[in-house]
Formats: sequence, C-alpha cells, structure tokens
Amino acid sequence: FASKQPNIGTTIFTKMSALATEEGALNLSQGFPGFDCDPVLQDLLAHYSKGHNQYAPMAGIPELRNSIAEKTKLVYDVNLSPISEITVVSGATEALFAAIHCCVHPGDEVIMFDPSYDAYDPIVRLAGGVPIHLTLKTENGFRIDFEELARAITPKTRAIYVNTPHNPTGAIWEMEDLNSLAEILKGTAILLVSDEVYEHIVFDGKQHASVLLHPELRKRSFVCGSFGKTYHITGWKMGYCLAPEYLTAEFRKLHQWVTFSSATPLQWALTDMLKMPKYWQELSSFYQQKRDLFAKALKGSKFRLLPSQGSFFQCVDYSEISQEFDQDLAVRLTKEIKVASIPISVFYEQPPEQRILRFCFAKTDDVLIEAANRLSKL
Amino acid sequence: FASKQPNIGTTIFTKMSALATEEGALNLSQGFPGFDCDPVLQDLLAHYSKGHNQYAPMAGIPELRNSIAEKTKLVYDVNLSPISEITVVSGATEALFAAIHCCVHPGDEVIMFDPSYDAYDPIVRLAGGVPIHLTLKTENGFRIDFEELARAITPKTRAIYVNTPHNPTGAIWEMEDLNSLAEILKGTAILLVSDEVYEHIVFDGKQHASVLLHPELRKRSFVCGSFGKTYHITGWKMGYCLAPEYLTAEFRKLHQWVTFSSATPLQWALTDMLKMPKYWQELSSFYQQKRDLFAKALKGSKFRLLPSQGSFFQCVDYSEISQEFDQDLAVRLTKEIKVASIPISVFYEQPPEQRILRFCFAKTDDVLIEAANRLSKL
Ligand SMILES: CSCCC(=O)C(=O)O
Ligand SMILES: CSCCC(=O)C(=O)O
Repeated sequence: FASKQPNIGTTIFTKMSALATEEGALNLSQGFPGFDCDPVLQDLLAHYSKGHNQYAPMAGIPELRNSIAEKTKLVYDVNLSPISEITVVSGATEALFAAIHCCVHPGDEVIMFDPSYDAYDPIVRLAGGVPIHLTLKTENGFRIDFEELARAITPKTRAIYVNTPHNPTGAIWEMEDLNSLAEILKGTAILLVSDEVYEHIVFDGKQHASVLLHPELRKRSFVCGSFGKTYHITGWKMGYCLAPEYLTAEFRKLHQWVTFSSATPLQWALTDMLKMPKYWQELSSFYQQKRDLFAKALKGSKFRLLPSQGSFFQCVDYSEISQEFDQDLAVRLTKEIKVASIPISVFYEQPPEQRILRFCFAKTDDVLIEAANRLSKL
Repeated sequence: FASKQPNIGTTIFTKMSALATEEGALNLSQGFPGFDCDPVLQDLLAHYSKGHNQYAPMAGIPELRNSIAEKTKLVYDVNLSPISEITVVSGATEALFAAIHCCVHPGDEVIMFDPSYDAYDPIVRLAGGVPIHLTLKTENGFRIDFEELARAITPKTRAIYVNTPHNPTGAIWEMEDLNSLAEILKGTAILLVSDEVYEHIVFDGKQHASVLLHPELRKRSFVCGSFGKTYHITGWKMGYCLAPEYLTAEFRKLHQWVTFSSATPLQWALTDMLKMPKYWQELSSFYQQKRDLFAKALKGSKFRLLPSQGSFFQCVDYSEISQEFDQDLAVRLTKEIKVASIPISVFYEQPPEQRILRFCFAKTDDVLIEAANRLSKL
C-alpha cells in the first residue's frame, strides 16, 4: 500500500490529549474549554432535537446564514450576501480544507508563516500544491515580515494563509498589517485563506483585524470562522466560510463532495444563539481574565511569558528551566507533574533554536491555578 | 480564477429539493425521510446537550466505536477493533471522500458502475485519479457484469466502488456477487470503497451482502456507513468507516485534515441508540411496506416499476407516458403536478436511451398516496 502521506502521523493535539488522559494530567494542550457551553445553548439544542433532523441545504440553513450576515454587519460593518457569500461547514477545519482544495492546482505554491497550524501544510500537499514556509521571528513577537513575504511570491503563488489571532502564539495582526499585505497583493490574482477562528478573543482593548475590513483583501479571501471557540462548543464542529461570490461558488463545489452539508439541529440552535451579541461581546474580557490569572500564578516561576494578544493560548519560554527539546519536555511534564502542553516546534518546517511551550488557558480558574502551581515548582 | 471543477454544478439533490420547495411540490427527489426520528433519539440528544460539547477524539468517542463494533458483531458476525478499524466521520460523504483521497494517487484509476452516486466521480477527479465508468444494464436489473469488470482492470486500477443496496436503482448484490468479485481481485492490491449506507433496508427476506462478510474482500475494503438512513436522521451527517488497520491508519490521516472529528453530542446520543437492535431490525419491513404502498398506488398508472430490492428508492420507466429527456420531465412534473423526483441520467457518464425517474418512498403514507395519485393521472 503506497501511502499518500507517508510522513504524517497523528496530530499533536490527539497525541497530547490522549497522553493527558492516560496520565490523569491537567490538559492545557489541545485548545478546548475545560467547561461547558452556556445553558441557553444547551437548551436550544434540546429544543431543536425535535423536528430538525433531516438534511440541511448544502450551503447551510438560510436562517443561520442570515444570522451570520447580521453578525458580520454588526461586528465589521460589512454586508455579505447569505445567498452567495456565506457557507456553513462542519468546522473550520473543513473550511480550510475546502478553501485550499477548491483553488490550489497541482504545482501551485501556498505561503504560510511558521509556526503554522498543523493542518495547513498537509492540506496543501493533498491538493497537489507546494507549501512555502516563511518563519516568523520569535524576537519580533511573531510579526509578519512583509518584505520577506514580497520576496517569496512567485508566478506560482496561488494563495497565502493568514491567521489572526494566531495559533499557537497568540500574536495578532494590526490594521497596518492588512494595508501592507494589500499593497503587495494589488494587481495579483493571489488568494487568501484567512483563519479567524479566534476573531472574538482579542485582548487589551485591541480590535480584531479581519481581512473583511479591507476591500482589497476581502475580494480575494476565504474567511474561515468557527462557532466552537466563540460559544465553548469545540465539539460541535460547526464553522463557516465567508467569501465573495466567485470564490463561494467554487468553495461549495468542494464542500458538496466533502461533507455535503452540516448537522441540522446544531445549525438551528446556533441561529438563535447568534442573535444575542452579548456572547461574543463579552468573550474577550472573559478570556483576558483567564490569561491574566494564569500569568499572575506563574509570576514566581522561571518561565518567561511571551505576549498573548489574542486566542486562548499562552506561550512560555522555558530556557531557564531546561535545555530539553520541547517535544520531550511536553511529554515529560505531562508524565511527571501532570500538566499537558503543546510543544511549538511541531508547527515549524525548520524549528528555530528556542525553548517554547504553548498552554491553553481556556480552563476553569482552579485548573489554571493548580497547573501554574505545579509549573512554578520547576 | 482557474476552477478546479469547471464542469461541476450543484448536485441534483440540491437542485431538485430547492425546486420542490419553490414549487410547493411533494418532494420525492432527495433521499431523506419525510418524518422525524424516534422520540427516544430526540430525548437522547436533549440529554447529551449538557456536558458533551467539546472535541471528540479524532477517530470518534470510544463508546460509539464500541457500539459500532458490537452492532457489526451482531449483524455480520464479524469482529472489528474499535481502536484500529472503526472511525466515526461527519456523514458517509466524508467517509467516501477520505477513503478515496487516502489511497488514490494522481493517475490511478477507480472503477465505478453507472448509474453511480453523483459524488463518486468528482471525488476521484479531485484526488487526481481517473474515473472509469462501466454501465450497468437496465434490462439485467442493474446486475454487475463481472466479465466486463475483469476486462476493465488495468495495472493502474487502484480501487473499485461497490454500492449495495444501490442508489439510485435499489438493486442489491447477492453473496455470489461477492464471490465473483473476490475471484477477480485475488492476488491484486486493488481496494474497495463500499458504500453500504442502506445496509439495513433490504427487502423480501433477502440479506444484505456486505463486503465485510467475505474475508478476501474485507481485507481490502473501506466500508462507508451512515446513521442517517438507519435512524431517520439524514441531517445529523454522522457516519463511519470500517477498514482493516493498515487502511484505517491512512483513512484517519485524511480525516484529521478534512474535519478532524465529528459532533460530540450526536456521537453520545448514537452510542445509546445503537444498543437497541430493534431499530435496525425493524427497518427493512418498515420501508418494504412503504415500497409496496407506493407501488400499489401506482398500479393503475402508465408507469412501469423497476424492481426495488433495497434502499428507499423506486425507479420507474415512463416511456409509455412521454419521450422527454428525464431531466426535463423531472422539472416539468415538479412544476406542473407538484411531484419532485430525480432523473437518473445524471448518474451516468453516457446515459443510455431510456426513460427512468427515481422516487424516494421514505415519506409518510399520505404523501406517497397523494404523489401516486397525481402521477397516475398522467
Ligand atoms: C482540531 S483539534 C486542535 C485544537 C486547536 O485548534 C489547538 O489546540 O490549537
Ligand atoms: C447528500 S444529499 C443526497 C441524498 C441521497 O443520498 C440521495 O438522494 O440519493
């Protein structure tokens, strides 16, 4: 049997979560809330468990697409057509997959910035494309080097992955970054696949710099969104893709062969949930408190915290504690002090010489404090 | 923008269901029940809406995989490992997509039998493969011609699609068909992608001839299953893939980039549901009654019914009524007598000279009788 992916194993998230379970460790590795969603949403699902169990339309129920359009208008002051620019999918992973697969032809290049989410590279390869990895400089706070990006573009560049707030680092793009990118792309046919699943988790009063906000970018973007992060329902695997009509048409052609449509009762529950702005409006401050709590609890430790400007991840430099390879340390800490994390070297094609772990702070305060206490003893 | 699928439009199911809605027609086109699932399952979903909302493990929650293993043992007397041979996915469409994409390399040939489900061909093309269409003979009841199949095999043949009960025709495979196929495949490395979503809907006392029942076939098969057809929940988009360990390993590598995992609350509800054999045991007779009711109500009409041995589809020959192209007639009937159906020519690479429509009889008795009455006036 000739494998299509001979060098691919199980994702780091599966590996570390499984190890955490096995070891009875506090699981700050895979990014998911350690608490349940709001009872309002639970009740909505219970309600829609009756009478909403057959196929949804391929692009999503119109009601949910309308809710997404209204939210997009409210949040970004951008008008999208629910009919031709919004598609509901089975999680942001499907959105990323279908976006790349509907536009990347064999031999096309797709640029990504390392550390990059672990699905980006294999998705491109499976489409026959060539992943081009640029490395973000840790010492620059993982900001994009647009001159380097401009130099990396070739006639074969089909698309660029954007990801803000950034997983795994928590770095965010500013409006000026969107401008710099637009400057480079003007006059080209290069597309963007913009992973904005943490759009509602941005700290310190900053605004999320969605590519939707920039007309030059919006017209060439697949924006991949998720309900999982916003409503504490990572397990629902519900997301969406926002894209101009000519891209949405191609995206849906892919989607219809990949999953065809997404779970109907979940779509109905989310339709109602999206009509209540407070849930996304309060999310940043909810998670900022957790970020700060975790940071404070690590104060006395030898970990050096890197800035977390968004997402629910905190990266820490452990070079004062150990010179171990991060993948070894992550396993050892899970086994020895029962705290699981993600080693960020897995997100690089060529990991730089650095010692960094990622912790997910979407956990109850108790768990965050206990994890920080255990870590502080190192 | 260079389309990856320049010749692909919207699936026939989306088109006809949308037209049916627009026209207020009885929708016997897209295959889904016109009634809700059992209240027991609704209540299970309501129950699991609390506390089961974060990521399921990539391969599915162990409890559901165990339930599937137990069911497979009960129904087919086959032991599968929940750990290494069963993967839960977001609907049978995802199972088909990931199965083909994990094994088909550019240039590989994949054989399918027309009329073939509309996703089969594009899924192969997207993987860079070459679809090879063989045509089932209508006058032979759509039985496989194994001599023709043997001649179609080349050194490039990577896989063959099996589909029993067959969509759109309702034809089924017998045990002897499995033997004939095994004979041909012995000593080759050719794989099978076996679409068995109607496994529990087989009529007239016949048994479902799953490829699982034949060791020579099982060892090379991805069996794609669905909960949607068995529990009247097509909208849940929950399915699974059964495959030997070496294939499951590759299948999961694909699945982890396509959707990563499937909806957790739905998985829990299904885990309990699968422990009650009566639901699948009673399904064939439930649908056989509907098949017979619809047939009886069409007795006085000029439609000639083709045999329906399984699935919830009834194909009818309308050549005594009209010489129109089936795609035109399906649209016209939806508009004029408000009964929607599926024209089966869309499932052929080269449609033969024939006049056949497919009706879905997974509808309430009232709807079936009313549809048949309208059709009988033609
Ligand atoms: C799809 S599982 C990965 C969850 C996640 O996004 C993360 O931990 O970074
Ligand atoms: C995925 S929608 C198609 C439903 C179906 O299987 C059919 O109508 O044949």
